[in-house]
Amino acid sequence: MDIYETALELHKKYKGKIKTSLRDTGVMDLAKLSAYYSPGVAAVSKAIAADPSLLPVYTWTNNLVAVISNGTAVLGLGDIGPKAAMPVMEGKALLFKHFADIDSIPIVINAQTADEIVDVVSRIAPSFGAINLEDIAAPICFEVEERLKATLDIPVFHDDQHGTAIVVLAGLINAMKVVDKELKDCKIVLVGAGAAGTATAKLLYLYAQPEIIMIDSKGIIEGGRTDLNDEKKQFLDFTNPRNLSGGLDDALVGADIFIGVSKANLLNEQHVVMMAEQPIIFALANPDPELSYELAKKTNVAVYATGRSDYPNQVNNAVAFPGIFRGALDHGVQKITDDHKIAAAQAIAGLINNPTAELVIPSVIDDRLVPTVAAVIR
Amino acid sequence: MDIYETALELHKKYKGKIKTSLRDTGVMDLAKLSAYYSPGVAAVSKAIAADPSLLPVYTWTNNLVAVISNGTAVLGLGDIGPKAAMPVMEGKALLFKHFADIDSIPIVINAQTADEIVDVVSRIAPSFGAINLEDIAAPICFEVEERLKATLDIPVFHDDQHGTAIVVLAGLINAMKVVDKELKDCKIVLVGAGAAGTATAKLLYLYAQPEIIMIDSKGIIEGGRTDLNDEKKQFLDFTNPRNLSGGLDDALVGADIFIGVSKANLLNEQHVVMMAEQPIIFALANPDPELSYELAKKTNVAVYATGRSDYPNQVNNAVAFPGIFRGALDHGVQKITDDHKIAAAQAIAGLINNPTAELVIPSVIDDRLVPTVAAVIR
Repeated sequence: MDIYETALELHKKYKGKIKTSLRDTGVMDLAKLSAYYSPGVAAVSKAIAADPSLLPVYTWTNNLVAVISNGTAVLGLGDIGPKAAMPVMEGKALLFKHFADIDSIPIVINAQTADEIVDVVSRIAPSFGAINLEDIAAPICFEVEERLKATLDIPVFHDDQHGTAIVVLAGLINAMKVVDKELKDCKIVLVGAGAAGTATAKLLYLYAQPEIIMIDSKGIIEGGRTDLNDEKKQFLDFTNPRNLSGGLDDALVGADIFIGVSKANLLNEQHVVMMAEQPIIFALANPDPELSYELAKKTNVAVYATGRSDYPNQVNNAVAFPGIFRGALDHGVQKITDDHKIAAAQAIAGLINNPTAELVIPSVIDDRLVPTVAAVIR
Repeated sequence: MDIYETALELHKKYKGKIKTSLRDTGVMDLAKLSAYYSPGVAAVSKAIAADPSLLPVYTWTNNLVAVISNGTAVLGLGDIGPKAAMPVMEGKALLFKHFADIDSIPIVINAQTADEIVDVVSRIAPSFGAINLEDIAAPICFEVEERLKATLDIPVFHDDQHGTAIVVLAGLINAMKVVDKELKDCKIVLVGAGAAGTATAKLLYLYAQPEIIMIDSKGIIEGGRTDLNDEKKQFLDFTNPRNLSGGLDDALVGADIFIGVSKANLLNEQHVVMMAEQPIIFALANPDPELSYELAKKTNVAVYATGRSDYPNQVNNAVAFPGIFRGALDHGVQKITDDHKIAAAQAIAGLINNPTAELVIPSVIDDRLVPTVAAVIR
């Protein structure tokens, strides 16, 4: 039975992945029901009406993350709509519970435009302690996150962007030690200008101002292109300082680092040869990476990371997001800032004392991750 | 320590009332995580994309009720807003779990107009198996429920309306046996034309076409009044057939049944004397009923019911709603109809073999309620 058959069978057997239960597991007699519901609960509502900051003191919002998606960019499946997105969002809620003991509920929404998404999320936001945006297509996801962060009083975090960016930065911090280079001196080629690629480019630049060349489906992003949307035009401010034009081959010459969030087998052996000495390859396309494991072994790749759990150095968002939300909830953080993201990446990297080619990113099951990351989100 | 202090203490101690947990309580190793999340979960999403009716087969929506409120008519507290409404909605979610083992989550929304409420609920509806509307002010609540019922493919039930109506009808079915009357021959005075009063009048008329006189804060609802909104004008179609005008005293002369969803101590001893023989009083104002327990004992009231748990015959919505949603979820019911409501009332009444003045409504903790009611919602 393959992983897909196993998945269908498990989902059918348990009829889903999460459920609710009561925090108070003692005997629920009528006296207690009268305190938890009418008439006693009126005192709790009155207290919150008088001071809304008491919401997390008296309700489950103190430990509650909504995983919200409109289903427009789900895994590699694309725009499959809210109902079909539900298993993935419920899965994310399972990860929140499993890794960080966070209560999390999936909310899939019928909403297409940024205005629609911002409106519905804003209206339901009083129900939650934090919001994890998930699998919302670029470029709308950028505007949605920025507008929600600006107006809501709880953390809003688009994990497809920042989860990936944080784990890539953590991996590169350690990879630098393996190859004895400095990130600020590196030339980075980043293929894929969607949610993950965009956030990764921004965070790497913020951290060390390396030279970054962004490539989308039309080639290198540069000032001469007339097809760039507003989001991609922003890359011109901080990437491609030598104003390169052309395609992947033009960009890769002498590059220290390749980061791919694009498609299977984009790179061949010749591409690796074109790069600088001790090339670092983060080939994150799922399930088949931009450079195969076999080719990475066969060439002189110094550090190789993928999105897969069966190879070393898995770039898995679950390395970062459980601890980030754990910290935000526990410490009453209202906005997850760039400083938080960098601190999280450093904390993750710091869990590995002596990085090697086979170990620059901690395993997702390393139980030091959540407390270590949570500690710096405050 | 009174009930309010107890409530504050319990809520603070447990930091709320509900939490999430995993359905699969076995060891959650990486292989299983890969089935419940990426990459395995893609197969489940694909299956639902191909056939959306599989949503409840593979996700928790099969047992999931959202308790949705905008916080405009919360308990006796009025318009306290979404955050202050959260403890009540989380309490309702606790009742769903406790009485019917239904997973339920509170969703409080920033939305005022019917258009706003309908829009936000419609957009999040794919996330749920059923929707319990709660504590939304009249008359907006009527339009909201009707529009959502017309468009959504899951049950929508405004419990403030129909929960009360069903339990009142159940109680009256049994009260008729106590006084040896027929409901169709009764004259009913119903004070309070909000959500509960309106739904109760409609359901009683539908069931037996008795003579019903509705009274709101301005007096008897009759054709000569110029201050009636559209919702109240509908009462002219099926209430007040003798076109009475005036106030409570005018209506009560010779009445068989008084139903109050209004305010404390509206009735005195003289009011009871004005009624027909063996008067039935359902005095549902909380916490102090329209006729005090002491006066009911002192006068010739034949059957007396209140909203209180410390007197006989408690009209508690929790007698009805857990079984109604249990049945709807288990039997794939997409709309809860008037026939369902009447069947539920009859099923509830039928649990009492020999009704007496002290026992016309089963206790909320009668564990036959949920299966008995659920059985008729199909």
